Amino acid sequence: MATTVTSGLRIPPSVMESEFKRILLKYDFTEDKAATLADIYTVNSLEGVYTHGVNRFSKFIKYVIDGYVKPHEEPVCIHRAGVLEQWNGRLGPGPLNALVCTDRAIEIAGQQGMGCVAIANTNHWMRGGTYGWRAAKQGYAFIGWTNTIKNMPVWGGINSKLGNNPLVIAVPYQNEAIVLDMAMSQFSYGALDLHVLRNQQLPVPGGYDKQGVLTTDPASIRESERTLPIGYWKGSGLSLLLDILASVLSAGFPVLEVSKQNVENNLSQVFITINLARLKNASTIPTLLQQIIDDYHRSIPDRDSKILYPGERVLRVREENAKNGIPVIQKVWDEIMAL
Amino acid sequence: MATTVTSGLRIPPSVMESEFKRILLKYDFTEDKAATLADIYTVNSLEGVYTHGVNRFSKFIKYVIDGYVKPHEEPVCIHRAGVLEQWNGRLGPGPLNALVCTDRAIEIAGQQGMGCVAIANTNHWMRGGTYGWRAAKQGYAFIGWTNTIKNMPVWGGINSKLGNNPLVIAVPYQNEAIVLDMAMSQFSYGALDLHVLRNQQLPVPGGYDKQGVLTTDPASIRESERTLPIGYWKGSGLSLLLDILASVLSAGFPVLEVSKQNVENNLSQVFITINLARLKNASTIPTLLQQIIDDYHRSIPDRDSKILYPGERVLRVREENAKNGIPVIQKVWDEIMAL
Repeated sequence: MATTVTSGLRIPPSVMESEFKRILLKYDFTEDKAATLADIYTVNSLEGVYTHGVNRFSKFIKYVIDGYVKPHEEPVCIHRAGVLEQWNGRLGPGPLNALVCTDRAIEIAGQQGMGCVAIANTNHWMRGGTYGWRAAKQGYAFIGWTNTIKNMPVWGGINSKLGNNPLVIAVPYQNEAIVLDMAMSQFSYGALDLHVLRNQQLPVPGGYDKQGVLTTDPASIRESERTLPIGYWKGSGLSLLLDILASVLSAGFPVLEVSKQNVENNLSQVFITINLARLKNASTIPTLLQQIIDDYHRSIPDRDSKILYPGERVLRVREENAKNGIPVIQKVWDEIMAL
Repeated sequence: MATTVTSGLRIPPSVMESEFKRILLKYDFTEDKAATLADIYTVNSLEGVYTHGVNRFSKFIKYVIDGYVKPHEEPVCIHRAGVLEQWNGRLGPGPLNALVCTDRAIEIAGQQGMGCVAIANTNHWMRGGTYGWRAAKQGYAFIGWTNTIKNMPVWGGINSKLGNNPLVIAVPYQNEAIVLDMAMSQFSYGALDLHVLRNQQLPVPGGYDKQGVLTTDPASIRESERTLPIGYWKGSGLSLLLDILASVLSAGFPVLEVSKQNVENNLSQVFITINLARLKNASTIPTLLQQIIDDYHRSIPDRDSKILYPGERVLRVREENAKNGIPVIQKVWDEIMAL
């Protein structure tokens, strides 16, 4: 989730990337892996997803130090069933594992129209959009998701059983992409905390208080831990099915097993790609998408709302941060510099 | 959406099915097609989805009479790209087209692990769950969706641009299935009307009133036509992406074009199936699902909530309706008998 940064500190992307790389090399990553991870953490930050970029970098290194993320492990294919492959992530770095899966799914779809790679025993992929953008920029549609540690009750229940299991859907658009990257919870715990810190109410109901009343008060939701699935019973169902598919297809841990651990790892993920170039209508897809998006933008806005398609904000933030530097909270940067 | 029926009339499933078949034959359906459609409309009703069963049957016949649904047309494959096929529904009966697509996707997945059939120019598939149950009962996971006529504003907008684009995800479970069948709107117009009729407020916010205030008042939402996507900005994005994928993959109409017509047809749909029997962990999937569902059921309920997984209610309703007959509103049955 993008969060507004209040500090005045801005780090040029090239500086951020080289600092990340320097630190990763220090923590025993190979030159190649350090470069790729530094790029991912920097681009996520550049594009405004600070929570899964610069703000998360220290925690990633901590997981390496603690042995939860294993810098030298690489994912392996354990089973092939036609266009579907099952991989074992061996607790390697989540973003690197996810890139391998995305690229392999693209490779399969390149040959057979569609590909699916499911991976077990992997780590947090950071920003799911990373893999959607990657596939879309190569002309592929992308559907992917991950499970997580439990952080949300099922509909009708009061104790956490479900993950927020982010889902990513992406398609190529112009020279960029339309990328939906959404968790199944209405607000993350990070977003709740930010509203508490700022003494702000949520813009829409985000959960239940301890009395079981729907509320926009972030502190009450923090207290009850009854966060809200998107669409109430609907997001609850969708979260369950995404977890079932991720664990079934990857032969990996469901949320239930992930949550028995001390940390959020041994996650299960799915990467599905579709080769749009091989469709009968391949040449007219750009026109179709332009018509859909133009019509979308012709919506009559509610007061001063800006009508944006999923991923559209990224373009503006990327440009702004490339020009002015990436905004970073001083404390976050100090922690990184101390690694 | 399941709705409580207040009438005392109950029709035995076998009677309903034979009446449906008799009427379908009268309106020029072949013996086979009449039998299949009668079965689908009856089972949907038997399983509690009256809105897309008995309550919708007269409208289906009206569409046949008016030429929107063409009883003799059959879908044809217009393009193959590996495991992905593009079909033209030629405005044939939506449920029959959807069955053909489901079965073909299963056939492809049977050979290649995964199959995808996208169909353009089809009619309303009625209850999306029909196809999820069908695939799951044969051991396949299913992901499918349809677009619709526009009936929901995009996030930040006040006029309808999006469809509610129902999404279905199903997996085999015990000898039945776990089936999620959900539209992207928090409440259908049908559900809003039912609450207005009963002078009831919605259980959770369902849209905005004309002043742009979030409300649980169904009449105010009816008036503003600002129905709510599930999860606000999230369901808005998901609806858009499902429409894009459906129209791109099928080479068919997006919601934008569907909505330019007098009626809701020429829809675009996607059917993805996965052959679970070919997974490395095929033999342990039932145990995994049992663990997940057992844990789900161990949720601590909020007051007297019943904790049900998606599709669980179907089992109870099916049994009850099989025993007591399918509850039907007298006026609905009278209309059908007059066809």
